[in-house]
Amino acid sequence: MLERLKEEVLQANLSLQRHGLVTLTWGNASGIDRGRSLVVIKPSGVDYVALTAGDMVVVDLAGKIVEGSLRPSSDTPAHVVLYNACPAIGGVVHTHSTFATMFAQACREIPCLGTTQADLFHGPVPLTRFLTADEVRDDYEANTGRVIVERMAGLDWESTPGVLLAGHAPFTWGSDTDAAVRHAVALERIAHMAFGTLLLNPESGALPRYVLDKHHRRKHGPDAYYGQKKP
Amino acid sequence: MLERLKEEVLQANLSLQRHGLVTLTWGNASGIDRGRSLVVIKPSGVDYVALTAGDMVVVDLAGKIVEGSLRPSSDTPAHVVLYNACPAIGGVVHTHSTFATMFAQACREIPCLGTTQADLFHGPVPLTRFLTADEVRDDYEANTGRVIVERMAGLDWESTPGVLLAGHAPFTWGSDTDAAVRHAVALERIAHMAFGTLLLNPESGALPRYVLDKHHRRKHGPDAYYGQKKP
Amino acid sequence: MLERLKEEVLQANLSLQRHGLVTLTWGNASGIDRGRSLVVIKPSGVDYVALTAGDMVVVDLAGKIVEGSLRPSSDTPAHVVLYNACPAIGGVVHTHSTFATMFAQACREIPCLGTTQADLFHGPVPLTRFLTADEVRDDYEANTGRVIVERMAGLDWESTPGVLLAGHAPFTWGSDTDAAVRHAVALERIAHMAFGTLLLNPESGALPRYVLDKHHRRKHGPDAYYGQKKP
Amino acid sequence: MLERLKEEVLQANLSLQRHGLVTLTWGNASGIDRGRSLVVIKPSGVDYVALTAGDMVVVDLAGKIVEGSLRPSSDTPAHVVLYNACPAIGGVVHTHSTFATMFAQACREIPCLGTTQADLFHGPVPLTRFLTADEVRDDYEANTGRVIVERMAGLDWESTPGVLLAGHAPFTWGSDTDAAVRHAVALERIAHMAFGTLLLNPESGALPRYVLDKHHRRKHGPDAYYGQKKP
Repeated sequence: MLERLKEEVLQANLSLQRHGLVTLTWGNASGIDRGRSLVVIKPSGVDYVALTAGDMVVVDLAGKIVEGSLRPSSDTPAHVVLYNACPAIGGVVHTHSTFATMFAQACREIPCLGTTQADLFHGPVPLTRFLTADEVRDDYEANTGRVIVERMAGLDWESTPGVLLAGHAPFTWGSDTDAAVRHAVALERIAHMAFGTLLLNPESGALPRYVLDKHHRRKHGPDAYYGQKKP
Repeated sequence: MLERLKEEVLQANLSLQRHGLVTLTWGNASGIDRGRSLVVIKPSGVDYVALTAGDMVVVDLAGKIVEGSLRPSSDTPAHVVLYNACPAIGGVVHTHSTFATMFAQACREIPCLGTTQADLFHGPVPLTRFLTADEVRDDYEANTGRVIVERMAGLDWESTPGVLLAGHAPFTWGSDTDAAVRHAVALERIAHMAFGTLLLNPESGALPRYVLDKHHRRKHGPDAYYGQKKP
Repeated sequence: MLERLKEEVLQANLSLQRHGLVTLTWGNASGIDRGRSLVVIKPSGVDYVALTAGDMVVVDLAGKIVEGSLRPSSDTPAHVVLYNACPAIGGVVHTHSTFATMFAQACREIPCLGTTQADLFHGPVPLTRFLTADEVRDDYEANTGRVIVERMAGLDWESTPGVLLAGHAPFTWGSDTDAAVRHAVALERIAHMAFGTLLLNPESGALPRYVLDKHHRRKHGPDAYYGQKKP
Repeated sequence: MLERLKEEVLQANLSLQRHGLVTLTWGNASGIDRGRSLVVIKPSGVDYVALTAGDMVVVDLAGKIVEGSLRPSSDTPAHVVLYNACPAIGGVVHTHSTFATMFAQACREIPCLGTTQADLFHGPVPLTRFLTADEVRDDYEANTGRVIVERMAGLDWESTPGVLLAGHAPFTWGSDTDAAVRHAVALERIAHMAFGTLLLNPESGALPRYVLDKHHRRKHGPDAYYGQKKP
């Protein structure tokens, strides 16, 4: 079942490694078939060189395994919470990419310091709070998803396609798995640039609002004119 | 038309990616046929692995598309403004390369801290001002070119082959597309070195003037003696 | 003798280089056959491209060469001390990987700033003391092993799978050579993240204890649920 | 003539690029045939992908071209000064490698912060003074060599196999071209580690003298025991 989505999810996972976002097995990408309400995700802790499309695991929106002989990623409950919270997202990615993780560990949002970020994020990259001891003890991974949803309250999931988990690492999402991967790649580069910008000038502030709005609207929404017309 | 220039511009765009200056589709290189006053540029938002010479778009010096089935880079109006402003340049490159973008975001010029920069830039790498709200609202990309031209007033385009756009990223240029790419590669390395130099010694100052002049004249102008004689 | 272990140790050494942990010949991996109490280790100062399984050297737990025509790594006595001190370890790796070495040279432990480290280390990455002049003069390499053992007093070798040698570089270990290599790879990434985290926020502190415990127990011990069931 | 040395010098130059020490054409390696007092060096400003052994230029110890149809590296006079100053060196390398150049531009020596450096340098990596205006105006490249020789006064060329030129970049040398390349590779890594060490702990000081001496003597001089016996 879902052979095409499994292949997409496999390729997305391999692509994370090719882009240098994954050390050892620290990362996972998933995709959802909204028609069937089924999520396809990487198995847990399997070496990337050995991964095949057939290894991908299918779970439903309650997180129950529907198909697959391997355990799904231990982060599966977090992915499922995100799919349930936002019907517009079709793919989710979690990595421990180096520079984005620095900001997560330093408990700093990434302010929108330049047009590179504005093209993708309509503002800062948000930071969640830490989970409480209770949230960690029971249902930890689902609660990880829940603090993301809590942080996204009042924000638009399309114009804020990712967050930093305090003391942990980033999650990104998009209209499909590929888009979630592109956002993970972009976020890592944005984080690297912000890291250096803040070292060169600790007083660096956010872009003027009118630049932020312009750059975001060039690429997103009804007035977008970046890229090619959709066929 | 312009098949040879299209191939050059394609190779230049691919070369930007090979040199690690481009993440996803963030970058573009163009070249001009001065005899015919036509500019060849990369299409907007197309994946580098899929690019062919036939995808390159031809525009005139008013920015009007002359040939090509794809939309040209959204930055085309900026390129066109530069070609109009300086008849000596034959190629233009825009990237969001990581370290040069850090300086652009930190709103810091790159002082000429060593001979690596002096070989290329006869002084600092200049920084433009931010565009105003009006300049952003109407004709944004052409105005981007115009603030570069404004910043270059009184400077020589050959001995200052690039600038940093405040809050954005670098533009470079050269006698042809290849030269513009080489300057983009060099600028990124110069920015990386300057980043570290300023962290190691925040008081680092510009090279003595006589060293700056010497290094620049070794490679440029009538007394140049670096490299091989032109055939 | 020990052909299979020699091949494993060879592959581990090559893997250190592939992961970018080794410059020139600065690194070595070893493995032990506990049944026969024999250690297999890389020869000293041989170029990685020329290494073969047959070049691996076999030494006993007194450090005496049992087989091999080449000199073993000059760090062999340190490896042997570690194998003698902790019967649970099956592989040892020593590198001068860039970011871990920065912390060793700066004489700073790596505090547990995020879940990436907590997945592997149940707390900070410890730092040894400097060797004394006497310890350096006589039996230097064995004394290097001894200060590691001294530092590990009261710590569990499985949940603290590596240390930083003051003024020197990291050692890691694991249940076999492969595990020791994975820990060396992870430590280098953890060190890179910690480096940036501390620059972004010098006040960054350790994870809350309950997160540290949770993450470590997800991957280690009786309640582990990360990865696949052992066959 | 000197076909074997030309091949060695070609391979050394290619190796500089493979090790990531060279951007564009910024670097050169040379070797000397002491019996014939002839130096083989890379031609100036030629793209590395096009280089052949036959392109290498032969000059004598007065810097006069003896064979070769291309111009030698513009830095040839500096190489020649070094060969004349120290009969023990057989190869010289000059690069603008990123981290070593940061220290040169910041006008900071690299203190011996760890055993990685001690294995190679018996103390800090020295920094030259700036050239005077007169030294820059006339005979610039030879004067570059002369300030290196001036800085090396009282130091041993074998246990200090490289220096940083203030405001410029590193030179390294060795018993042959290969050794000079290895020292360039090691210096760049040492500089990267020192950069991070000093950011993590600005008070980091040099290794205790007894550690410095021990590490250097493990690899160099009559009591060396690192690596394999010379055949």
